Amino acid sequence: MTNQPTGQTVGVGIIGGSGYIGGELLRYLVVHPNVEIRWVTANSHVGETVASVLPNLGGFLDMKFIDLTVAEEQVGDTTVVFVALPHNQSQDVIPRLAERYSEVVFIDMGGDFRTPDPDGYEKFYGRKHGAVEWLPRFVYGLTEYRRKELATTQLVANPGCFATAMDLALAPLAAAGRLQGDVFVSALTGSSGAGNKPLSTTHHPQRGSNVRAYKPLVHQHLLEVECFLRTLTDTDFRIHFVPQSGPFVRGIFATVFTPAVSGSELQEIFQDAYADEEIVSVVDGSPELRWVQGAPRAVLGLSGEADRGVVFSIIDNLGKGAAGQAIQNLNCRFGLPPMAGLSLPVGFV
Amino acid sequence: MTNQPTGQTVGVGIIGGSGYIGGELLRYLVVHPNVEIRWVTANSHVGETVASVLPNLGGFLDMKFIDLTVAEEQVGDTTVVFVALPHNQSQDVIPRLAERYSEVVFIDMGGDFRTPDPDGYEKFYGRKHGAVEWLPRFVYGLTEYRRKELATTQLVANPGCFATAMDLALAPLAAAGRLQGDVFVSALTGSSGAGNKPLSTTHHPQRGSNVRAYKPLVHQHLLEVECFLRTLTDTDFRIHFVPQSGPFVRGIFATVFTPAVSGSELQEIFQDAYADEEIVSVVDGSPELRWVQGAPRAVLGLSGEADRGVVFSIIDNLGKGAAGQAIQNLNCRFGLPPMAGLSLPVGFV
Amino acid sequence: MTNQPTGQTVGVGIIGGSGYIGGELLRYLVVHPNVEIRWVTANSHVGETVASVLPNLGGFLDMKFIDLTVAEEQVGDTTVVFVALPHNQSQDVIPRLAERYSEVVFIDMGGDFRTPDPDGYEKFYGRKHGAVEWLPRFVYGLTEYRRKELATTQLVANPGCFATAMDLALAPLAAAGRLQGDVFVSALTGSSGAGNKPLSTTHHPQRGSNVRAYKPLVHQHLLEVECFLRTLTDTDFRIHFVPQSGPFVRGIFATVFTPAVSGSELQEIFQDAYADEEIVSVVDGSPELRWVQGAPRAVLGLSGEADRGVVFSIIDNLGKGAAGQAIQNLNCRFGLPPMAGLSLPVGFV
Amino acid sequence: MTNQPTGQTVGVGIIGGSGYIGGELLRYLVVHPNVEIRWVTANSHVGETVASVLPNLGGFLDMKFIDLTVAEEQVGDTTVVFVALPHNQSQDVIPRLAERYSEVVFIDMGGDFRTPDPDGYEKFYGRKHGAVEWLPRFVYGLTEYRRKELATTQLVANPGCFATAMDLALAPLAAAGRLQGDVFVSALTGSSGAGNKPLSTTHHPQRGSNVRAYKPLVHQHLLEVECFLRTLTDTDFRIHFVPQSGPFVRGIFATVFTPAVSGSELQEIFQDAYADEEIVSVVDGSPELRWVQGAPRAVLGLSGEADRGVVFSIIDNLGKGAAGQAIQNLNCRFGLPPMAGLSLPVGFV
Repeated sequence: MTNQPTGQTVGVGIIGGSGYIGGELLRYLVVHPNVEIRWVTANSHVGETVASVLPNLGGFLDMKFIDLTVAEEQVGDTTVVFVALPHNQSQDVIPRLAERYSEVVFIDMGGDFRTPDPDGYEKFYGRKHGAVEWLPRFVYGLTEYRRKELATTQLVANPGCFATAMDLALAPLAAAGRLQGDVFVSALTGSSGAGNKPLSTTHHPQRGSNVRAYKPLVHQHLLEVECFLRTLTDTDFRIHFVPQSGPFVRGIFATVFTPAVSGSELQEIFQDAYADEEIVSVVDGSPELRWVQGAPRAVLGLSGEADRGVVFSIIDNLGKGAAGQAIQNLNCRFGLPPMAGLSLPVGFV
Repeated sequence: MTNQPTGQTVGVGIIGGSGYIGGELLRYLVVHPNVEIRWVTANSHVGETVASVLPNLGGFLDMKFIDLTVAEEQVGDTTVVFVALPHNQSQDVIPRLAERYSEVVFIDMGGDFRTPDPDGYEKFYGRKHGAVEWLPRFVYGLTEYRRKELATTQLVANPGCFATAMDLALAPLAAAGRLQGDVFVSALTGSSGAGNKPLSTTHHPQRGSNVRAYKPLVHQHLLEVECFLRTLTDTDFRIHFVPQSGPFVRGIFATVFTPAVSGSELQEIFQDAYADEEIVSVVDGSPELRWVQGAPRAVLGLSGEADRGVVFSIIDNLGKGAAGQAIQNLNCRFGLPPMAGLSLPVGFV
Repeated sequence: MTNQPTGQTVGVGIIGGSGYIGGELLRYLVVHPNVEIRWVTANSHVGETVASVLPNLGGFLDMKFIDLTVAEEQVGDTTVVFVALPHNQSQDVIPRLAERYSEVVFIDMGGDFRTPDPDGYEKFYGRKHGAVEWLPRFVYGLTEYRRKELATTQLVANPGCFATAMDLALAPLAAAGRLQGDVFVSALTGSSGAGNKPLSTTHHPQRGSNVRAYKPLVHQHLLEVECFLRTLTDTDFRIHFVPQSGPFVRGIFATVFTPAVSGSELQEIFQDAYADEEIVSVVDGSPELRWVQGAPRAVLGLSGEADRGVVFSIIDNLGKGAAGQAIQNLNCRFGLPPMAGLSLPVGFV
Repeated sequence: MTNQPTGQTVGVGIIGGSGYIGGELLRYLVVHPNVEIRWVTANSHVGETVASVLPNLGGFLDMKFIDLTVAEEQVGDTTVVFVALPHNQSQDVIPRLAERYSEVVFIDMGGDFRTPDPDGYEKFYGRKHGAVEWLPRFVYGLTEYRRKELATTQLVANPGCFATAMDLALAPLAAAGRLQGDVFVSALTGSSGAGNKPLSTTHHPQRGSNVRAYKPLVHQHLLEVECFLRTLTDTDFRIHFVPQSGPFVRGIFATVFTPAVSGSELQEIFQDAYADEEIVSVVDGSPELRWVQGAPRAVLGLSGEADRGVVFSIIDNLGKGAAGQAIQNLNCRFGLPPMAGLSLPVGFV
């Protein structure tokens, strides 16, 4: 059975609806029983129908992309605006709109507002932050750990994809006071994580069966993960993170070595942490990435011995790693059923 | 907006729910607003939960597989039974059940009852048909062309996957009296078409980037396609069909050469044939297979010149090519909204 | 055993050595026992080592890319120059060099000189040909059918990849006077056929499991195929050709319907045509694309019935479809062992 | 230029020539200038030509598979026998043959003789070792570290694939006395590592875009890696190893966290360790897996900061991880040129 309408309808606008994250937001929104999509912007497709640019939505949405300047005048007709712009851009857009439309909620998909740390931002994102005073006003939308804050905020900073995979694996440890010392993370992502602009690293002949690592130990998502985890614990820890890109389109498979936490401790901590969650489930041993490809789900797998452990954390980078979590945050913010818009089972293969 | 419940609820049983087609049926049924799944059988997984065998359904269905002999006693509790057994098996099951439970509708996913031609069956399927007198009682469920018959039948023979791709491309021509002489079809299928039993032809190291053809000119789906088309036309035609297998999981991409029909005639005929269809759409030029992978949709692309044409027909072999069409037939049979259970947008990538 | 050196050494220059075809030429040339590579040009990599741009050649070639203007002064030091430029460019380069260095052989990998038909060229390649009087001087290098001409020519136009697949399937029919009426060809190519420049059609997230057709009935390789075949027969024939792109990197799988030639006739004609060939082999039924991926080989598979046939033609687009055939032509031109430089077995998987 | 014959010819027999490793051995051997293949066995293909089972070798080898019992009588005609049987089998074959033919060299590709530790063997391979007294007679063939021993041994135990990737990354540290404390390794392998028998984990629909881990922390290759490394150092160390399987056919990408060794130390140690190697090269940052897919090469990539490091180790599981290394060992044993039979450049894509 799908979600029953509650009667409540939320008017939604999307800034940046033609990219992979914006498109995935639309995929969930068009079947959300409590949502009415009011407008969608897209820089390079103004005037084109959404379904001509995103043929997967054919039959689901009869609407054309509009220009951001036009959309800005219509923000007042919406309850919530999703902003899915490239990094370093939403800081130039959201403050202006959030000030003008103080009743409207903004959910930012970019990296601009995920921590209150402007120096860290500049270091990792290469741009001096242009809206420093806005940073502390955002709630970091790792849904499972921020429900209370999300319920009332005007401003949500949706977590990054690798960050979400790591957050889900490390937050239960942090909350249990068991995130200590070194943890080692290798995480493999699909090519959709790089966005819709063709690059040599996503050129099919070169990516089709390739694996490579990039930004070893220095990926920008470390910034938000460490910042978020430090809100849960005051123990000392250090994350050694190596992101990798693999020959598939969707999903992140993260392997987290926890040299100081045993397999049985992991079981206890994680079963406890996620017992009542709809989106996050916990299994023994390794999960399989295809369980979450195309879905908003996350699965945490646990393994280990008497004196060490391994946590596997899998998500779809566009699902729980981006658009799916944004929908969770929408539902949380407006008291909608938690799975509204997210009940889209994927195929077994 | 998702489909609104109509109040009507159809009780469903599935025979053979752990294979790829049975699993895909469940994927659609668990979100169907008018369906209640009563029981699911699976030979080799009796007693296991559905979600442990099909992890993609985790959170959607809390039920265990039961044995067919147990299920047979519960058929009376259902309104409709889907039968997703390997070819040559449903002829030993459906007649017995359909006789005993004459009020229950049976939708067969196998090749056993798709034509009234027992000799053709034996030739192509390698078994002397065991229920010849039942053959004429089945309606061939190519939904778009059998709505009237489907509305009242007890017995539906759901078309094969390659057959569906060809039917959709050739039926409009046949209905317009323009299917004449030779047509040439090459069609490439994904590996899921071969089912869930590991074989050397679907062994990843050997399939991962391979292409090969098989059963050139003699594939068994020719039987049902020709039989179906001859109900629409009495012109002479001959289909030359070469199936191929490609290095992807889901979908069929069929290329149909129509040497006797021009591009503009195709436009006229197809726009007319599918103008009001929800599931089938028509585009200029080639469609892209990913538009339908994971979805119940079909897209027909048209190309050609003044004296010849090409039709591209794409479906997901498990969607419109199997489970999706079975849901269409269910909806048609019981007067449910045509897209009920089928409003599952897939990702852009 | 590898090829034994014959004592003869051919000095080679390559214009355009950093693209996929140029790189594949180098792959064969570095192990060619009779070749000495003198210089390699690359527009955008001048001064970089070949192995830094093409890491697969690490350990095989210690040389830097040079500029074309520098290379032009060194053409006199070579016996043969391979020109691997984008279409429409070699016509501006080869005539100048071939006139200045009349003793040097030029093997052009582009589409510029494959037919003596300037009007056809302009129609298919979109540029008025700039060296019309040079067109008839080139030998079309479909090796198996041009050995005599290749042995003495200064100028070779290497066939296109789709063209080679079709030539190999249709030339035996033409030569036997059995290419008559309509033939229908669908051919699926890997992504490397599109070259090394990232495009949306080769963007991994969109190509990773996709299939689409392009330029149906009007692909530019029809020009050279028809022109070549008409040198073998004066019967009337018409080729209906639909190219497709598939989710793999290397190889072309072509399916050719021959409605007027039976399966047994095909056997006779093809066994006869290719009995003594090293590179081309003939099998019953469908070959598998992986047999030729990464290799210079071609395999023709035959199928059919008493009154119709199907020919499968498979090559690697960069092998027999480009660089491999160019090496064959080199060997043929200079009387080297036919397999010199081509004895590179690929893996079973 | 390919390797020049030295005049010396080594007669080779292969036991188990139809599997992936045996087939890859043949791929190298057929172009090895100093090798003459005398016979090849294959359980299930006796009497079939090698090229009919391994079509990639068509034109390279004109020979039929024979039965092991027949081959046993012909071992005396060979100088070296490669044994490529499933694990737990060569221990029943090699001792008998090595005793009977004491002049013949045996290179075992299986896990049976890689350490002198029968208890470890039983623990990891699940069988009580049947030839314990033979264990110490074998040289562990990690070529770069065993040249002296290889030069005179009768018996070689070729390392496992994951083991080779780890050995190459950790041996330089061990030899430099810098392998101390915990190291963490995640390594992703292609599907060919699982062999040629179809399984559900290598079933294309389920593997096509999947990632999963298996045997976390307890993979059997830990046995040989630790045993080998302890011959190089007496420091205390512990390897935490999680193997993963990815959606590609060939290659292993290993990520090794070295929390106690800085990036600049890594540079020094590895540049020194592999400066003169033909097969192993060292690069800054991450290598790309496609550089070694299909090739006998290994590439080690280095990254890190002032107080921690990361080593990437990539090989082809069938190349340096199996057959390629066996050829290196052959060359080493008989004083042949180190790259003889291994000069097979792969494509850039």
